[in-house]
Amino acid sequence: MKKLKLLILGAALCSGTAAMANQDLMTKMEDPTQWAIQTGDYANQRYSELDQINADNVGDLQVAWSFSTGVLRGHEGSPLVVGDTMYVHTPFPNIVYALDLNEDGKIKWKYQPKQDPNVIPVMCCDTVNRGVAYADGKIFLHQADTKVVALDADTGEVIWEVMNGDAAKGETNTATVMPVKDKVIVGISGGEFGVRGSVTAYNMADGSLAWRAYSMGPDSDILFDPEKTTMLGKPVGADSGTNTWQGDQWMIGGGTTWGWYSYDPEADLIYYGSGNPSTWNPTQRPGDNRWSMTIFARDPDDGMAKWVYQMTPHDEWDYDGINEMILTDQEVDGQMRKLLTHFDRNGLGYTMDRITGELMVAEKYDPAVNWTTGVDMDPNSATYGRPSVVAEYSTEQNGEDENSTGICPAALGSKDQQPASYSPKTELFYVPTNHVCMDYEPFRVSYTAGQPYVGATLSMYPAPDSHGGMGNFIAWDNIKGEIKWSIPEQFSVWSGALATAGDVVFYGTLEGYLKAVSAETGEELYRFKTPSGIIGNVMTFEQGGKQYIGILSGVGGWAGIGLAAGLTKANDGLGAVGGYAALSDYTALGGQLTVFALPD
Amino acid sequence: MKKLKLLILGAALCSGTAAMANQDLMTKMEDPTQWAIQTGDYANQRYSELDQINADNVGDLQVAWSFSTGVLRGHEGSPLVVGDTMYVHTPFPNIVYALDLNEDGKIKWKYQPKQDPNVIPVMCCDTVNRGVAYADGKIFLHQADTKVVALDADTGEVIWEVMNGDAAKGETNTATVMPVKDKVIVGISGGEFGVRGSVTAYNMADGSLAWRAYSMGPDSDILFDPEKTTMLGKPVGADSGTNTWQGDQWMIGGGTTWGWYSYDPEADLIYYGSGNPSTWNPTQRPGDNRWSMTIFARDPDDGMAKWVYQMTPHDEWDYDGINEMILTDQEVDGQMRKLLTHFDRNGLGYTMDRITGELMVAEKYDPAVNWTTGVDMDPNSATYGRPSVVAEYSTEQNGEDENSTGICPAALGSKDQQPASYSPKTELFYVPTNHVCMDYEPFRVSYTAGQPYVGATLSMYPAPDSHGGMGNFIAWDNIKGEIKWSIPEQFSVWSGALATAGDVVFYGTLEGYLKAVSAETGEELYRFKTPSGIIGNVMTFEQGGKQYIGILSGVGGWAGIGLAAGLTKANDGLGAVGGYAALSDYTALGGQLTVFALPD
Ligand SMILES: O=C(O)c1cc(C(=O)O)c2c(n1)C(=O)C(=O)c1cc(C(=O)O)[nH]c1-2
Ligand SMILES: O=C(O)c1cc(C(=O)O)c2c(n1)C(=O)C(=O)c1cc(C(=O)O)[nH]c1-2
Repeated sequence: MKKLKLLILGAALCSGTAAMANQDLMTKMEDPTQWAIQTGDYANQRYSELDQINADNVGDLQVAWSFSTGVLRGHEGSPLVVGDTMYVHTPFPNIVYALDLNEDGKIKWKYQPKQDPNVIPVMCCDTVNRGVAYADGKIFLHQADTKVVALDADTGEVIWEVMNGDAAKGETNTATVMPVKDKVIVGISGGEFGVRGSVTAYNMADGSLAWRAYSMGPDSDILFDPEKTTMLGKPVGADSGTNTWQGDQWMIGGGTTWGWYSYDPEADLIYYGSGNPSTWNPTQRPGDNRWSMTIFARDPDDGMAKWVYQMTPHDEWDYDGINEMILTDQEVDGQMRKLLTHFDRNGLGYTMDRITGELMVAEKYDPAVNWTTGVDMDPNSATYGRPSVVAEYSTEQNGEDENSTGICPAALGSKDQQPASYSPKTELFYVPTNHVCMDYEPFRVSYTAGQPYVGATLSMYPAPDSHGGMGNFIAWDNIKGEIKWSIPEQFSVWSGALATAGDVVFYGTLEGYLKAVSAETGEELYRFKTPSGIIGNVMTFEQGGKQYIGILSGVGGWAGIGLAAGLTKANDGLGAVGGYAALSDYTALGGQLTVFALPD
Repeated sequence: MKKLKLLILGAALCSGTAAMANQDLMTKMEDPTQWAIQTGDYANQRYSELDQINADNVGDLQVAWSFSTGVLRGHEGSPLVVGDTMYVHTPFPNIVYALDLNEDGKIKWKYQPKQDPNVIPVMCCDTVNRGVAYADGKIFLHQADTKVVALDADTGEVIWEVMNGDAAKGETNTATVMPVKDKVIVGISGGEFGVRGSVTAYNMADGSLAWRAYSMGPDSDILFDPEKTTMLGKPVGADSGTNTWQGDQWMIGGGTTWGWYSYDPEADLIYYGSGNPSTWNPTQRPGDNRWSMTIFARDPDDGMAKWVYQMTPHDEWDYDGINEMILTDQEVDGQMRKLLTHFDRNGLGYTMDRITGELMVAEKYDPAVNWTTGVDMDPNSATYGRPSVVAEYSTEQNGEDENSTGICPAALGSKDQQPASYSPKTELFYVPTNHVCMDYEPFRVSYTAGQPYVGATLSMYPAPDSHGGMGNFIAWDNIKGEIKWSIPEQFSVWSGALATAGDVVFYGTLEGYLKAVSAETGEELYRFKTPSGIIGNVMTFEQGGKQYIGILSGVGGWAGIGLAAGLTKANDGLGAVGGYAALSDYTALGGQLTVFALPD
């Protein structure tokens, strides 16, 4: 890991002025005492070299201090630590606090944007925000209403701001941004409102637009070179972003980009996935609906796509492909390979060569997954790389106004946005998962800008004939494509994991527990009940020679939407309300940061 | 203490069926593992016999678990513990949670009343609530809109409910209730809306009205016997509740009863104080304005007043007399005396004989107090028992539309509702105080039902020429009338204190710290930064052989009204916004319970 980071740093330093602007960030990401961007590093490993807190002593962990954000509803993402300052963000209205770590979190500055509350009803899955990013002396905030703001990290003053989308059309934001070289990469939400997804790069210095790449549309919109952009080794050809759509449906085609971004400085490629095609009624959009549900590798300078891979052609279940891409360098069959590992909503764990886009592994990471028998791995097959769909669970084949029952996973996938972590020591991925199935009844909808464009009624429930719970926290071997161990959980694990050199893995639960388990065996070593359910991501930092663990509580997100938005009808919240109804027996709303340390 | 409690219990057991109904509560109050009513016991001592956590080990205290209430704004009061269940209440909308202590606070039931949000703007000093009370298998909640509700303690089902007042006239509630024998005693708020204060007793069994005693009005309204009700040993005479008022002003005369109640089962008397006369412009209400600003001793069965003492005749500063009456049995000049000690808003600490109403001590408990030179203690003087007012600080003498400056204390007093505690081991009172002065400019107002009836513009600031902070936490000797030690605090201490047999005193701060200090010396032994500013009261309980400390965080109350209600103009919030503006550098809103214990 250390080696990889140094390599990355070296590569960046060599690539000229653009990279120079980012040297500061690279140095901070390399420094395990800080946590400068949401993912910890560009590789999205969420791994820390800190080992003061370790498997032997984590049982003694204590709460060091805590901080209430003053905002209810779901708190995703995590705080950042840069120097002696911690940056804490909130869901809508997207307040940012700079806290002084030398004074138990005294507030250095607070930034509270004024946003039109009309954005709230056009956010599909709670008013969450996955956090701010640091780079170049600035804190970057991407608000719910799609305003991107650069704040002075020292004072909180606005340096520039730019509007990325139009909430009146259902364009919103929940994602963090990724600062890369001299740009800030941002996504967009609104797949349930017929938004055409895009990724946009703004120049870090002044917020001017550098490039925008849509998920579908003409080659000039999607920034594809028909000859050079490949899928599974073959050029995609002309018009790939329109020719698997009927008519103009691609214009309201979804494929939003609300997930996580990673970057390989050596290859100089950014990676991310696109979401579901709109609407959820598959009959209304014949074709593969490219490039929804797709992994993209793009050049950060001009946005051009190097390779793509569509995991779920013609989605029939809302299996957005936006989950994080975790970049690792691992030995496979005696060779060091540059890998990308991705746990998709569709229940398959993918291992790919991140340089070439070669598909190496595609295996179920939850045994409950039943909509597919697996992916065709034969390069010579006509269906190479395509999942084979089980007819019984095809909501397209069952047809409109037919309730397809017992589909696993549910729409929120075997894993949703909650990010996994990777330990280079164990070469295992630690994955917060859902163990939930669904009934799905598509119906015909018509498009009106800014109005829901969903087209299906869902209900969700724990995977049948299993442990009765709705989640597991698993350790995954991405080379063998196998679960190493699995911890059953009563609710979906909607919190991002952290692995550390102390051989400990941390994650949060929807009931509100922060848990620490052994990286080797999954044995529980510590648990603490934080004030509210956890959908935030665990992070760590060091200050004054002491290692701390930080986590945001604040139940919500899609799983917690019943509590967050005060909904009680089972089918409300796109089907999540009924499935997670029991959550209200465990926790109530509230946004708090809890910081842990070992006793002195 | 133990002895006093046993005496009290014995007395209650002897006094027939009414007392029998309350035997269960008496037993629970006697049991230090439980915390059945807000004040801990009837004597309002807020003292616990538990000593597992003590001065030697309190430095090792840890957070055991935490719980977010899902409500923002000020959280006053404390949780209760009865058996294995903890009851947690919130400010408006006044949710009550029953939490299972055997399962880290899993929610057994939740009661969420539906209340008209129009009550919010007629609450003078934030939407606080000082908590529920347990008795007779029921949890009693007194909502903001003055509805009194009896809930089944096991199931949360409503057993009965009754409306005590009318929010449309500005009648609201923030106080807890006191269950006594077969009745529940409740107060009312609205002194800033011309509400005529009253205390009401409802029958515990069915919520039917037992009696109501107004603070002013005809003898039949105030439940005075002109011959038998005494003040400083003399009968008050006929019409005492009207003859110090001009015309009908007593009908909108204030004297609300939103503070704390105590009870002496042996004497069979309840004690409480009344608030400011309305309006805050003294010129509009000539006379002593009896019985505003008064300590009352009443018979709980029929409400008849045994004795009264008006501390601040014809108030000119809003020094509500509602602070708690702490009942102790102490030796004075070689004799055991039944005492009542009261730290009034006006800055004087009073020690009285609680049986006769004799005034024994009246001394300043903050040296900054300047509006009076002291109380006339000569029984033969015409002004016996009256404070002598310093002309410079008389807002009446300075006149309407004149700004009287430099008055100490400010309107929120040297102490507001935040309750003190008493340790029978040290015979000291531990008092959370304000160290704040004010400018006060009265102006003429006219009364409209349900509209603010304030009549003064205020600004507040730290006591000049002192330590610069706005509070002190002091130890007070009620017999000598002397401060034993004093801890300077940056902000007013708006949290209720707890003293324990472990020689530790706990209190919270507006920045959010829970602090533990030595009961002997005041030396700080422990501090922890909870998620939000503390205006709740510290309580303790034992469960499974382990002692716990519980505290509600959630900044607000009058001092925190700027944060709680989002006000920023210095004179807003009746003058508190400017004074406490710096609070926003330390904390943000949020309601959380934090539970502490020693490591295993
Ligand atoms: O299609 C979209 O644009 C979109 C956006 C979001 C979002 O922005 O949070 C979610 C989803 N889809 C989605 O499908 C989903 O499962 C989901 C979960 C969450 C969450 O934060 O808990 N957001 C979203
Ligand atoms: O006159 C009244 O009826 C009345 C009511 C209340 C209340 O109900 O909270 C307060 C006051 N006055 C008041 O004077 C005051 O200082 C005060 C502080 C607080 C608080 O909870 O922080 N409430 C009140």
